[in-house]
Amino acid sequence: MKGWFEYNWQVRDEWFEVCRRLPLKELIEERTGGVGSILKTLFHIVDVEFSWIRAIEGMEDWEPLFEDYEDLDAVKELSDMCRKQLEEILSNADADKEYSVVHVSWHSEPLVYGEVLRHVIAHEIHHIGQLSVWAKELGIKRVSANYIDRGLGQRMLSGNESRVIF
Amino acid sequence: MKGWFEYNWQVRDEWFEVCRRLPLKELIEERTGGVGSILKTLFHIVDVEFSWIRAIEGMEDWEPLFEDYEDLDAVKELSDMCRKQLEEILSNADADKEYSVVHVSWHSEPLVYGEVLRHVIAHEIHHIGQLSVWAKELGIKRVSANYIDRGLGQRMLSGNESRVIF
Repeated sequence: MKGWFEYNWQVRDEWFEVCRRLPLKELIEERTGGVGSILKTLFHIVDVEFSWIRAIEGMEDWEPLFEDYEDLDAVKELSDMCRKQLEEILSNADADKEYSVVHVSWHSEPLVYGEVLRHVIAHEIHHIGQLSVWAKELGIKRVSANYIDRGLGQRMLSGNESRVIF
Repeated sequence: MKGWFEYNWQVRDEWFEVCRRLPLKELIEERTGGVGSILKTLFHIVDVEFSWIRAIEGMEDWEPLFEDYEDLDAVKELSDMCRKQLEEILSNADADKEYSVVHVSWHSEPLVYGEVLRHVIAHEIHHIGQLSVWAKELGIKRVSANYIDRGLGQRMLSGNESRVIF
């Protein structure tokens, strides 16, 4: 699972870089589809990943409010902070944990730990696809969505991904 | 890995259903972003998944041409045919295979089998994100991108996903 998170975080950071060239007006402009603006999308990706993983770890809810993150730097800072905590959480999760049943306050049915990890991974890739349409409309560079050519295959070979989640 | 393919195939089929309500004119209309039209996106997702997995299995290239698939039924039929073959291919791939080095004619560097599987999985989710923006613009239903609530967690528990790829 480690590779998936690395992939999403690499892609996310590349979008932060691209978005740095846009004025705030474009970042907060309401657009068709998704959660409505580029900045809100980046915030939403971070928020969803962090909330779900904290929840399946049995940690207390911590719900950042979009209103508190008013520009790209603030959302990037939130992203970095959350990632640091997630790296620590996931580095302590072994492969057996992936098959454990978990309960989340906002979802009535029980879920499986690895199912939720895949949910947050797919969630980010889906929203990044939406960003790519808006970027094309704006005429700015679109970040590659390729999983290959990011060094992730080499890391699979050198790491021990089959036995630990992160 | 099985769950990821099931996820993508469920979501893809739901998009085929939604798109059935659109006239061909809307399906082939050139749009901003991605590969340019809804029909071309669905075709492209199928083509890329099939080509890559055949290639890493050392099977000969088989490149469908978009021009030969002129409506939704034709692309759906292609999707069903490819999926049937992929199910067979992947059901014979065990977890060790995931770490094997593979060579693909259109990519100069060697890759890792599991890296390519993740590449095609992410590729589809990314393009589906683009479809969701276009669907919103068209005012039609958007298929849920949720990984949860598709029975995939339960299948994790009942299956043996840790040991076989499909």
